Amino acid sequence: MTLWLNGELVAEEQARIDPADRGFLLGDGLFETMAIRNAKIAFSDLHFDRLLKGADVLGMDVPFSIQTLTEAVSSLIAANNLNETSRAAARLTLTRGPAPRGLAPAASSTPTVMIACFALPVPKPSASAILATGRRNEFSPTANVKALPYLDQIMARREAAEAGADDAIMLNTQGKIACATAANLFLWDSDTLITPPLSDGCLAGTTRHMVLEVAKSAGIDAFEESISPSTLANVECAFLTNSLTGIQSLSEVANRKLSQHPKQQALSDALQAAETNSTGN
Amino acid sequence: MTLWLNGELVAEEQARIDPADRGFLLGDGLFETMAIRNAKIAFSDLHFDRLLKGADVLGMDVPFSIQTLTEAVSSLIAANNLNETSRAAARLTLTRGPAPRGLAPAASSTPTVMIACFALPVPKPSASAILATGRRNEFSPTANVKALPYLDQIMARREAAEAGADDAIMLNTQGKIACATAANLFLWDSDTLITPPLSDGCLAGTTRHMVLEVAKSAGIDAFEESISPSTLANVECAFLTNSLTGIQSLSEVANRKLSQHPKQQALSDALQAAETNSTGN
Repeated sequence: MTLWLNGELVAEEQARIDPADRGFLLGDGLFETMAIRNAKIAFSDLHFDRLLKGADVLGMDVPFSIQTLTEAVSSLIAANNLNETSRAAARLTLTRGPAPRGLAPAASSTPTVMIACFALPVPKPSASAILATGRRNEFSPTANVKALPYLDQIMARREAAEAGADDAIMLNTQGKIACATAANLFLWDSDTLITPPLSDGCLAGTTRHMVLEVAKSAGIDAFEESISPSTLANVECAFLTNSLTGIQSLSEVANRKLSQHPKQQALSDALQAAETNSTGN
Repeated sequence: MTLWLNGELVAEEQARIDPADRGFLLGDGLFETMAIRNAKIAFSDLHFDRLLKGADVLGMDVPFSIQTLTEAVSSLIAANNLNETSRAAARLTLTRGPAPRGLAPAASSTPTVMIACFALPVPKPSASAILATGRRNEFSPTANVKALPYLDQIMARREAAEAGADDAIMLNTQGKIACATAANLFLWDSDTLITPPLSDGCLAGTTRHMVLEVAKSAGIDAFEESISPSTLANVECAFLTNSLTGIQSLSEVANRKLSQHPKQQALSDALQAAETNSTGN
């Protein structure tokens, strides 16, 4: 595979992350995982807006322009022969870069920017989920940004795997539903959609954003609203959203079967249309 | 500088962290920061016990024996000419290693182990601290282990720097005191010491452990007890503990001056004696 690292295309085997990189040593950075559809980034503006907002929260510079990063993805698609691949993805990693030891960021540092592109398998149409033991911290200053530290989500995913489930739904520390390990959650309250507000500690997901935006055009009311575990325990239909898998039905939560809502397909179609529009295809 | 990376001594400029390393991409790993006194690891057993416990929590292997890791530190001390340095430190980083993309750990992977040794400056005898806005997540399965993700602590440290303070004390999500960004906290309640229990979300600090252990020999009662912000707001003496700085007085918390407790020196002496004993010097 060819990567893009700090402005250069480089073979993965040659690409070197510095052992003093704060991303490696402290989780001091951000990332974006973006769907590539017919060689273009889907919802590119949303991803780069989030990256810039996250960098602002962390007090970091993004040392390349959005245009340069977009061109980098194009060059990676070509270099990795993904032009003809209908389902691909790009992961952009931004860290505060190599620095002397210590928690406090140095006054000046050179951030690391790495982009990888890869083909994606077709996602499972539905997923099962447990409720994770660990909680998501809605009081973290990085709760809503896509920060590098994913260890708690990895722990929840391991817990899911041990229970034979695909994913885990995480509560926040006040016991409200936050999100799944790498996806936002939507519940159907009869014909209305609800999803936890950002203040409940979920990631500001790009697909979450788009579902809230396109629902109306599909004739669906969609709201942000805190969700308690008892609400989830009584719901009949729900789905996950993630930039790479789009809308994915929840087939089962905590060993209780769910079904796909009759309006979900219309929503998926509206999302698909918005995605196509965003890539100009 | 010479590093030890996966079994080999290697010049830092030559050391390569794989761009697919899960430590770099997801914060999937652990570390230990250990004081080196006269060329030996202080409280070596405590550090390696915590590393093994942490690896067990994460479901990771430590691919080298403790003896090999101890010898690696010795060889690094020699390679970096730290034999005559009275104050040095070693940082050991353990990650789940390079892996295919995705949150779920691969069934088999080769962990990355890196050790760096460096001379330490003499620490400030006292530190000032603010109360951080962000909270520490006592509901995280990794709250008590020394996991790589330190971004929230970096955020708190940045907040401290902006306020002109050295450090930040973090509450947990239920509003109890947890710890500072890279140190545990002890308060004096007249002549008795209290420190938050692990269940309040602090790191299981090695120096915290030793202070609880040696206090009695210094004629001091020491207990684990939840601490509310109002208790902290009325305390007259407090200190931080960290493996590299030992016991460090808090000179100021949230703009209120504190003083050093008359018994603190006896405690520092007892800790020093235990440290000397642990290195066989």
